[in-house]
Amino acid sequence: MAGGSGTRLWPLSRKGTPKQLLPLVEGRSLLRLAFERALAVVPATRILVVTGAPYLDAVADQLPEVPPENLLGEPEGRDSLNACAWPAAVLHARDPEAVVAQLTADQLIEPVDTFAGVLAEAFAVAEDLPDALVTLGVVPTAPHTGYGYLERGEPLPGRTDAYLIASFKEKPDEATASAYLAAGRYWWNAGLFVWRAATFLEQLRLLEPATHADVLVLAARPERLAEIFPTLRKNSVDYAIMEPVAHGKASARVVALALPVSWRDVGGFESLADILPTDRDGNASQARVVALDARDTIVFDHAGAGRLVALLGVRDLVVVQTPDATLVAHRDQIDRIKALVGLVAASAPEYL
Amino acid sequence: MAGGSGTRLWPLSRKGTPKQLLPLVEGRSLLRLAFERALAVVPATRILVVTGAPYLDAVADQLPEVPPENLLGEPEGRDSLNACAWPAAVLHARDPEAVVAQLTADQLIEPVDTFAGVLAEAFAVAEDLPDALVTLGVVPTAPHTGYGYLERGEPLPGRTDAYLIASFKEKPDEATASAYLAAGRYWWNAGLFVWRAATFLEQLRLLEPATHADVLVLAARPERLAEIFPTLRKNSVDYAIMEPVAHGKASARVVALALPVSWRDVGGFESLADILPTDRDGNASQARVVALDARDTIVFDHAGAGRLVALLGVRDLVVVQTPDATLVAHRDQIDRIKALVGLVAASAPEYL
Repeated sequence: MAGGSGTRLWPLSRKGTPKQLLPLVEGRSLLRLAFERALAVVPATRILVVTGAPYLDAVADQLPEVPPENLLGEPEGRDSLNACAWPAAVLHARDPEAVVAQLTADQLIEPVDTFAGVLAEAFAVAEDLPDALVTLGVVPTAPHTGYGYLERGEPLPGRTDAYLIASFKEKPDEATASAYLAAGRYWWNAGLFVWRAATFLEQLRLLEPATHADVLVLAARPERLAEIFPTLRKNSVDYAIMEPVAHGKASARVVALALPVSWRDVGGFESLADILPTDRDGNASQARVVALDARDTIVFDHAGAGRLVALLGVRDLVVVQTPDATLVAHRDQIDRIKALVGLVAASAPEYL
Repeated sequence: MAGGSGTRLWPLSRKGTPKQLLPLVEGRSLLRLAFERALAVVPATRILVVTGAPYLDAVADQLPEVPPENLLGEPEGRDSLNACAWPAAVLHARDPEAVVAQLTADQLIEPVDTFAGVLAEAFAVAEDLPDALVTLGVVPTAPHTGYGYLERGEPLPGRTDAYLIASFKEKPDEATASAYLAAGRYWWNAGLFVWRAATFLEQLRLLEPATHADVLVLAARPERLAEIFPTLRKNSVDYAIMEPVAHGKASARVVALALPVSWRDVGGFESLADILPTDRDGNASQARVVALDARDTIVFDHAGAGRLVALLGVRDLVVVQTPDATLVAHRDQIDRIKALVGLVAASAPEYL
């Protein structure tokens, strides 16, 4: 899944260049990194990308190994349920026995070897248990309030690596997040799934029959994409499928595996700064920077542009330079970036 | 005189584009504004520009009305004495009766009508008094510590508009500057002069005979410019000519006229900001800016580049965006720009 547009990284991310396509990590995009993680387990010819239709060309450029028929372009974003249901139907039409790993493209996950091992194990569980929707729970390393949590239940009979899910938790407040961390049985809900396409589609049929019918048509008659896709009901796969299934409202069960990795959601500049080289004054940058008495400032340059950013006597800023727009923000205010982008939309929409 | 390079406006000003050539004021450069001020008194064909040789093409582009033979390119900067002496020799060779106004190109002077009136009067004084070197003293409006001062002496016999000079004062401290302002007989030393070329050259002969001989050769044999000009002794015209002449050490006298104008030296970003439109939050800009909760911030964009600067939650910054470099500085630290440019010279000289 490589959808979304992401105003939180404006002006790096734009309408035509969403977050996951930006060359943020040593010249590679989050999409490319996600692709390479998947490559550790499956060949490129079996990797599908679901993205926004406007990004299909850019995705094809970044992932030349992926066959064109494996690039699925959504005419518009219809949330994660449909970004799971459509490819499940496509893969089921190609192979009724297909087992699908439904992965995200906007996280940084390390080490890749650990991820690949758990992913392979999840495939094995889904092969073994035809009634399982497998979800990967990231073992938390901090009381993060920005993620939903999975509460682990009992281990599956006869296994020590796979657990039933007791409950899904929305993003907690700080006290609750600390309690989750201390309790040891809560995992971050990473939105990483493995299931048999047939099993997923059967749950969809039971819980969202209209969507089920529609995606089967899409798989059989791709020329109707622009007509049907925009009419699909928007919903998250958690709300529509995972939670009802975990609560016994369909015919499968949700099985969770622990994913003990460093898992970072690159949502905004602060999380992006975590992966940048930092100088002794706390300035984090992947740009060419000359600084005099500057501290704790994050600098981004549009990759490969070869421009210089010079800092003098500043503190706690985020500076983002692109060919046609520059952002200068106080780090304490960066959460208001969406409001700023709203002003840009109102007064200078050509820079979106 | 349109020489100098000016690191204080980096990265707007560069090696190839010094301060006076930047389109800072509604698309016009300080040079163009100075040219238009002179045009109020003399025709374009009688205007000469002394600039650095690397800038000759840019000057010709900006001042197409000026004949090519009136553009004098210094192979290297040799301070104001030689920027006065060389054109005096050139003009004297063309017309031994020439009267020269030696003007600067890096100030903003308003109103232009007042300036033109005083300049015409200064020409009349220099015509009337063959022994006069006329200097224009700007009537101060504030106790400025960044300028030298002229102390006015007695009025010339039979005149009420022209004065002898009692002394030249270096840049004063704040208390002294306040005392000058209160006393009423001190003017800013603006470096604006009018003299007969023959009178100036005679003082030069008496005070700096080697330079005098050299500039006569330059006027007669311009092909020797690259050989001779770099050997001229560096000095300011005040130290070499005006002060000794005022002290009776040559054959002429220094006569001062009052110049009651708004006279601003556009030395750095703060003085440039004075002439920019300011919004209600104190942000001054000639760029396209979108601001959310930003105050007292100065934004410059390389003219005509059509880029956007977005500000979020910042205070008291100077933001300068150019095609290949961006400066973000705290206003309180902007006086350290030369040190920053020194760092750029050491680590990224291609951005100078």
